[in-house]
Amino acid sequence: MVQRLVLLLLLALPFPGRTADSALVFLTDFSLRDGAVSAMKGVAHGVDPSLRQFDLTHEIPPFNIWDGSFRLGQAAPFWPSNSVFVCVVDPGVGTDRLPVVLRTRSGHAFVGPDNGLFSSVADQLGVDALHLIDSSRHRLPGSEGSYTFHGRDLFAHVGARLASGQITLTEVGPRLTNEPVRIPVPPPNHSGNRCTGVITVLDVQFGNVWSNIDPKTLAALNAQPGDRFRITIRHHGKQVARFTAPYVTTFGEVPEGKPLVYLNSLLQLSIALNQDNLAQRYRIGSGPDWTLEALLLNRRPSP
Amino acid sequence: MVQRLVLLLLLALPFPGRTADSALVFLTDFSLRDGAVSAMKGVAHGVDPSLRQFDLTHEIPPFNIWDGSFRLGQAAPFWPSNSVFVCVVDPGVGTDRLPVVLRTRSGHAFVGPDNGLFSSVADQLGVDALHLIDSSRHRLPGSEGSYTFHGRDLFAHVGARLASGQITLTEVGPRLTNEPVRIPVPPPNHSGNRCTGVITVLDVQFGNVWSNIDPKTLAALNAQPGDRFRITIRHHGKQVARFTAPYVTTFGEVPEGKPLVYLNSLLQLSIALNQDNLAQRYRIGSGPDWTLEALLLNRRPSP
Amino acid sequence: MVQRLVLLLLLALPFPGRTADSALVFLTDFSLRDGAVSAMKGVAHGVDPSLRQFDLTHEIPPFNIWDGSFRLGQAAPFWPSNSVFVCVVDPGVGTDRLPVVLRTRSGHAFVGPDNGLFSSVADQLGVDALHLIDSSRHRLPGSEGSYTFHGRDLFAHVGARLASGQITLTEVGPRLTNEPVRIPVPPPNHSGNRCTGVITVLDVQFGNVWSNIDPKTLAALNAQPGDRFRITIRHHGKQVARFTAPYVTTFGEVPEGKPLVYLNSLLQLSIALNQDNLAQRYRIGSGPDWTLEALLLNRRPSP
Repeated sequence: MVQRLVLLLLLALPFPGRTADSALVFLTDFSLRDGAVSAMKGVAHGVDPSLRQFDLTHEIPPFNIWDGSFRLGQAAPFWPSNSVFVCVVDPGVGTDRLPVVLRTRSGHAFVGPDNGLFSSVADQLGVDALHLIDSSRHRLPGSEGSYTFHGRDLFAHVGARLASGQITLTEVGPRLTNEPVRIPVPPPNHSGNRCTGVITVLDVQFGNVWSNIDPKTLAALNAQPGDRFRITIRHHGKQVARFTAPYVTTFGEVPEGKPLVYLNSLLQLSIALNQDNLAQRYRIGSGPDWTLEALLLNRRPSP
Repeated sequence: MVQRLVLLLLLALPFPGRTADSALVFLTDFSLRDGAVSAMKGVAHGVDPSLRQFDLTHEIPPFNIWDGSFRLGQAAPFWPSNSVFVCVVDPGVGTDRLPVVLRTRSGHAFVGPDNGLFSSVADQLGVDALHLIDSSRHRLPGSEGSYTFHGRDLFAHVGARLASGQITLTEVGPRLTNEPVRIPVPPPNHSGNRCTGVITVLDVQFGNVWSNIDPKTLAALNAQPGDRFRITIRHHGKQVARFTAPYVTTFGEVPEGKPLVYLNSLLQLSIALNQDNLAQRYRIGSGPDWTLEALLLNRRPSP
Repeated sequence: MVQRLVLLLLLALPFPGRTADSALVFLTDFSLRDGAVSAMKGVAHGVDPSLRQFDLTHEIPPFNIWDGSFRLGQAAPFWPSNSVFVCVVDPGVGTDRLPVVLRTRSGHAFVGPDNGLFSSVADQLGVDALHLIDSSRHRLPGSEGSYTFHGRDLFAHVGARLASGQITLTEVGPRLTNEPVRIPVPPPNHSGNRCTGVITVLDVQFGNVWSNIDPKTLAALNAQPGDRFRITIRHHGKQVARFTAPYVTTFGEVPEGKPLVYLNSLLQLSIALNQDNLAQRYRIGSGPDWTLEALLLNRRPSP
């Protein structure tokens, strides 16, 4: 259903031209505490002052490519398909990881390092083309002495030129025949009245815990609002938390402070406390080492 | 005087049409750490790429409708009267709280849940009309399966359509005859050389403490710059802090680290330490349970 | 080389007219937790709704003029030369510090208090003209009763009028003959195979430590990538940390958690741990009391 949600959002044209309407959207792990993000935006504004610049987030935990990939996948599909994303979570800046532009089948363009950061959007939106950025042609003029800030010197510059229509994807550099680098993540699975997935991410502000258990996996259990689940959280296979909770459509269906199971805004199985912080209470983290098992206690017969 | 300040800022036209000039301003308790705010902006950009999108703040403490209402009242009057605000502090998302658009007498439009979040702007700017959002007509296409993110699926979509002039207020849904929900807050009062109010909010970055003691209440005491106050802070009626401080117009009039009484940027009685954090030092909070009493020590005779 | 970098970025025209293309960029120590920044942007949007408004940062530590000056110098040169910066780190608001507009030789305009906040841009970009803001003519209409929020009532208003071309620099107020206030900072120096500088700032998100040792000072040592340095950090002259580290061009050249010496994105000598937080590990701070000494261990003969 999330795919359907996404597909309905996308325009029909697969490869829209970039124009003054194209949003330029930034995602980094820089935070907004220093001038780095602003330097990137200044470079982009210099390329084309009519560009509309936006932030996805700059609060990706430092070097956390997993989290960056997830946040990108969470928000990018809701942007028009001619949008260009400049993405910098780049622990290997200056090493042999490649600077690339990924165009997805949806038409969105993603500029940044090919280090797994594009895993989620590649899976969700499909890979149309991957191009190497020819840094000899596309560097910010005058920045040749700087090695550690590709976000400013390369990615913002290229992203702004793409978004403003000054260059096309093929002018960025040679097309690569390989797929973009992906972070391996086990798919969700189910067996009997039980399904298991990875804890993809924490809804950090509220302490809700999201999994990659998708509507299809969940459908195999035939769970309905009102059913109860026994939830088990494990880290490296070791149990961290276990509780039972009802499957609801709104948080207000359980008393304050009580646990609940719900579909998050990406329609994936998630757990929360009503108006309290579940991740903090049980010290739950996220990433491929964290799993969520949901056991349907009152299994319904298949229709 | 704050009313005068506000009135002077407002344009003469009471119900301006929304146009490409209309700002779309977001306030949430989502933080900027994940992709939620960006998903909302992507939806709005998809509605009209020429929209100017801004942030009021996304750092409202989770579920804190009181604080959200105050911050909205602090900033909204300084925006042009054709501005549209998308406001999401929504602990009851999916319950029976109503999704609404409030138009104030000033012409500003506020889109969000009718849960008290609009208390301050309703009081300050006056209620002109309150409309229910007909979610069957105005949902983001394809989002029907999502129940917990009205900010993205409903409010951003409706706000963007209003700000771009694609729909008018009456097309949003039926007009409601009731007033918007308001958080009850005792008004400031005075007696003799003493006035008392609620601590509305902390100026969190600097630790200054703001009250709802307005210029009119203060005028009854005839306090003048240079006078001294004895300040008493109470929580649930129990004394938390007491000190004396001069009433000044600039922080620099007292030595570093010393307390002072001043009018904040909304012209309400406030207290602070010069270049230090008063709220932290005395562990002062905000909300209807916190009161500030100001006793004028050297009362002047009324003129 | 940073000068060269900067010069190449600047347009040829020294005093460009401000137009709808002129970015209006805000830097404050307000944080984004309350409505203050938004009130400033609302005022600016009211002046000219076609203005493009951006943030440099709002996370300057409260009252930290040193840090504000550095962040401004870090990002401003990367913005087009017709950009206008509204800068509010203003512990002396309401005292006799002057509200000014500084135009640098590069053409950029900086609006804010003359309290040292413009030290870095004055040094880097050169002083062209300094004008007092005539607050009797340029205040936000209706704000006369407010004394403590020049950012909203004066600077945002003047900055927006400048950026939109509604007023010119000479209309702001009388030209001052003095230089802008500067924070004194000892220049970097070298002697034999040793150079010393001030720790200008921490790259807070990653814990990297930046110095003001510039390429010219470093060139005197003839250091080459692959050389090793012994680094000594001192606070008030007392040793806080000492270690040796290679001089590299990319972080990935040392194992995770190991120290390295590199040129930051402003091409100044900096130190870091690969994918770890150096400032936290050694509790290093920044400012004029903190120094970094770099001793080249394997000195090469001058060519």
